[in-house]
This record gives sequence, structure tokens and C-alpha cells, in this order.
Amino acid sequence: MITIRTATRDDAALILEFIRGLAEYERASNAVAATEADIVRDGFSGNPRFHCVIAEWEGKPAGFAFYFFHYSTWLGRPGLYLEDLFVWPELRGKGIGNALLSHLAKVAVRENCYSMRWQVLDWNQPAIDFYERLGAKIMREWLDVRLSGDALAALAAA
Amino acid sequence: MITIRTATRDDAALILEFIRGLAEYERASNAVAATEADIVRDGFSGNPRFHCVIAEWEGKPAGFAFYFFHYSTWLGRPGLYLEDLFVWPELRGKGIGNALLSHLAKVAVRENCYSMRWQVLDWNQPAIDFYERLGAKIMREWLDVRLSGDALAALAAA
Repeated sequence: MITIRTATRDDAALILEFIRGLAEYERASNAVAATEADIVRDGFSGNPRFHCVIAEWEGKPAGFAFYFFHYSTWLGRPGLYLEDLFVWPELRGKGIGNALLSHLAKVAVRENCYSMRWQVLDWNQPAIDFYERLGAKIMREWLDVRLSGDALAALAAA
Repeated sequence: MITIRTATRDDAALILEFIRGLAEYERASNAVAATEADIVRDGFSGNPRFHCVIAEWEGKPAGFAFYFFHYSTWLGRPGLYLEDLFVWPELRGKGIGNALLSHLAKVAVRENCYSMRWQVLDWNQPAIDFYERLGAKIMREWLDVRLSGDALAALAAA
């Protein structure tokens, strides 16, 4: 009863619904500034900046995965970076999240990726436990650094 | 005396030298499995999986930056992800690293990126201090999760 399909330009509004649903779960619903036009421009025009698959349950949209590729200079191979994975709360427990993850793992293997990567909030212990049961490793030695806003503009002007 | 240029296919061996130089600094010189053929295939054939710029000092290669783009679903904008930045130890203190960072910031602004991101090892305090002086934020709430090897193959077969 679960099917997974590649998203098309017609799914832009649906993708945005999933993005907002996930942000709400992450206690950050006001953080979503993305618009349908952004999704169409960056995902479905020319050289796409991301990829997206939609999971359906009994023919209706139930969840999505949003990903792109990064690259390991040590290994000389790409990696699949999973930015968002989300299933509507009322449809959880049916294996939809697992089906999306398994689909992405197949994509990763097909594209010669050395790994799948994603991030988890340090307070989200149920998710950490789930990922570790899959055999994933939590990489605590590496910290993310982000430069944006005025600091980015100042560096660009230097 | 510093010039920055976009890498070409002819730079594949040089790029690999920089990758190995950085890995040595990161105490992981045995971790580099990448080959020249990998760099040519993934960076300079058809749809490139990464981008690379070379800094020269007095006309000789002095350092490099290796980057690609990620995407923020919250913001509906790409981000520039800096995978590697490296300057030969004997050429440090001349502003080459800063020139590379400033060049990348210009690329980020031009490409509508909301930020530049990279990672730092938690023991590398001199680097953390330098990044914070630039105005960058260390994102300690997000943890990296990585699924690879047998665990990835098992998920792909599920």
C-alpha cells in the first residue's frame, strides 16, 4: 500500500506542505520562508539543486524525502545528504519512513555513494535511537560552522 | 601576489596533493583513497559533483578550496558548503586562506546562497577562534548521522 515516486514540478505546493509539517515538529514553524516559486526554481528548472521523492499511502501523499549530493575528498566519491524526511503524524507506524529510507539507500548505492548522511537535533533521542538501530553512527567530533547575513556580506566585500 | 583561479581538469593531480596535505594536517593521511581518476570523473565530466578553486602565490599553487552546494528547505535557498580549505604550511600568514574564503563568499552571494557552511574538528580551537572572529556561528545543537558500509547495503536491500 506504500508507493514511492519521484516528485515533479506539480508537487511544489505539496513539498512545501511537508517542509512546513516537519518544521512544526522541529518547533520552528515560523522558520519556513521558502515559497512554491523557490521550490520550482531550484528543484525543477535546468540544473536542480535538490531531489525529492514522495511516499503515498493508499494513493494519497503521506510523506517525503528531500535530498542532494555532497562529496568526500578523502574517498573520491559522492555521498547522499538527506535534508528532510517526514511522514504525516497520523500515518506513522505503517513503515512509510522506512520505505523512504530504503529507497534513498538504493539511490545512494546506484550513484556510487560511500554513505548517506543527515543531521539530528541533539534532544531528539527517539530519532537517535532509531538511526543507531539502523547501524548509523553519530559523528560527535565534527561541529558545523555557519557564516551568514552581515558576516557573509562583509567577507564577500573583503 | 595572490591570484585565485577556477580549477580545470588539468589540476586533478594538484587537487589530490592538496587533499592529501589537508588530511595529513587532520592526522588522517591514510584516509585518502581518492584517485586522480575520481577527481576527473566527478569534478570535470558532465554534471560536476563539486567545484574547486586554486590560490597561487607568486604564480605557484599555494592552496585550494573545494566546495559544492547544499539547500535549505526552510529558506528555499541554496547554501555553499565548503568541504576543504588548505594552504601549504610554509605559505601561511600571507592572507591566502582569507583570500580563498573571501572569494567563496562572493560566489555564495552571487549564487543566492543564504550562508556558507563547513565543519571543524572539536579539538581544533585555533580554527574555531578564527571562524568566530569572522562572525561565524558554531552549531552545536545539530549532530551528524552517517550510514555507510554494510548498514547502507542492508538498508538498500530492505
